[in-house]
Amino acid sequence: MARIICAGLGPGDPDLISVRSDRVIRAATQVAYFRKAGRRGQARAIVEGMLRPEAVELAMEYPVTTELPFDSPAYNGALAAFYDGWADRLAAMEGEVVVLCEGDPFFYGSFMHLYTRLRDRVDLQVIPGITGMAGCWHATGTPITWGDDVLSVLMGTLPEADLVAHMRKADALAVMKTGRNLPKVRRALESAGRLGDAWLIERGTMPGERVARLAEVDAADCPYFAIVLVHGHGRRPEVVE
Amino acid sequence: MARIICAGLGPGDPDLISVRSDRVIRAATQVAYFRKAGRRGQARAIVEGMLRPEAVELAMEYPVTTELPFDSPAYNGALAAFYDGWADRLAAMEGEVVVLCEGDPFFYGSFMHLYTRLRDRVDLQVIPGITGMAGCWHATGTPITWGDDVLSVLMGTLPEADLVAHMRKADALAVMKTGRNLPKVRRALESAGRLGDAWLIERGTMPGERVARLAEVDAADCPYFAIVLVHGHGRRPEVVE
Ligand SMILES: C[S@@+](CC[C@H](N)C(=O)[O-])C[C@H]1O[C@@H](n2cnc3c(N)ncnc32)[C@H](O)[C@@H]1O
Ligand SMILES: C[S@@+](CC[C@H](N)C(=O)[O-])C[C@H]1O[C@@H](n2cnc3c(N)ncnc32)[C@H](O)[C@@H]1O
Repeated sequence: MARIICAGLGPGDPDLISVRSDRVIRAATQVAYFRKAGRRGQARAIVEGMLRPEAVELAMEYPVTTELPFDSPAYNGALAAFYDGWADRLAAMEGEVVVLCEGDPFFYGSFMHLYTRLRDRVDLQVIPGITGMAGCWHATGTPITWGDDVLSVLMGTLPEADLVAHMRKADALAVMKTGRNLPKVRRALESAGRLGDAWLIERGTMPGERVARLAEVDAADCPYFAIVLVHGHGRRPEVVE
Repeated sequence: MARIICAGLGPGDPDLISVRSDRVIRAATQVAYFRKAGRRGQARAIVEGMLRPEAVELAMEYPVTTELPFDSPAYNGALAAFYDGWADRLAAMEGEVVVLCEGDPFFYGSFMHLYTRLRDRVDLQVIPGITGMAGCWHATGTPITWGDDVLSVLMGTLPEADLVAHMRKADALAVMKTGRNLPKVRRALESAGRLGDAWLIERGTMPGERVARLAEVDAADCPYFAIVLVHGHGRRPEVVE
């Protein structure tokens, strides 16, 4: 039976990988990771210099989707076949395979699609990681939540009206999957009266990290690894009435 | 000028500390941590066996509060004085002090009250950590969020009506600071129609970890290190219509 370990990598800085993931990655003889076709892949980039020279690498390249709308049944079908295929291939492997996963694997991670397909078939372990959003709030140098603040985590792929409704209700916000959704995210923050307090963090804790007030950023030009944050202010034992 | 490094410890398992925090903790000559008076303290317990024998330890003991209601101005004042006092004491120290902080220091962490008091006075670094809630969702063996799920993080200290409103709107939920608020959290989940899907995780990734369906738990008996989770189910490329 194959033994599969998914190693959470944290937000990007290799020094923020957990002690356990670090050990597993450095010892691995077979390593798998997702990437876009033709790219090096962010997960692979994070572990650069950590892998054994003789480690076998399996790049799991997402199906090319330029012609298919993201939410079409056809794209859905292509992705399902892609995960099915890799699940079968990993399950058939001899020995241990370490699957690399950015951030925390159980938090909006692609690995979860392999996990549900493999959990009853192989010996499977998952190692948590620091989320990308935590790397981003540290990049701002400001705590994200205090006291009884409510934090809502939203995806830029949500309909604009849903974004606005959630942005109005929560104290602190983290909006992921911004990229080409950034103009919509920005409009939603404006409608919710939160744009003035929003920060855009690109490549948090990675080389090329950038932190800027969202209101001052050109929304047309947003990379995939970017998160919008609004900090909470909560109850604090500072002012004595 | 004092140099202060706050090391995020992650959810409890020392193997889940980041490589950077691990290195800083093992090298420390002066270590500070919060704890309740008369207790050993969870942060200190996590690093057991990691500290140098000669490391100087500073236990920052919260003011005793049994007579004061948690949200009274008097309690607020006692806490503010406590943080002021420790900020002054740390700022006056020679050399480097490592402050230990459970989970991620910028996510509802007590250290943030020292951070705001010290950031302009000393050389200050903060190392992210895996949050307690991530340790807890891994303890359930089930991913927390998929596709465009909304995750809301709520504190058990919130008024019941606020809890219900947020519980109705989000897909995935993490409720922290449960403890003596657990009966209220449970009623709120029931009103929001979410109790059947809720899990209670006590001491996630720590010795004595316990995972149970909240509906089957005696709400009167909940430790401080406990989180309630409801998993999201999101869009998944599994079923092709
Ligand atoms: C498919 S999700 C994966 C999330 C990951 N499992 C985690 O725990 O952060 C990808 C999204 O994560 C966000 N992200 C992850 N790491 C990031 C980083 N270091 N800086 C900025 N955004 C990041 C981006 O919004 C990106 O669109
Ligand atoms: C003051 S908050 C500190 C949160 C911490 N900074 C973090 O990132 O998780 C304390 C609350 O965190 C939650 N918590 C933290 N670690 C936990 C764990 N390992 N298991 C269960 N609950 C935990 C509990 O709900 C507790 O009431």
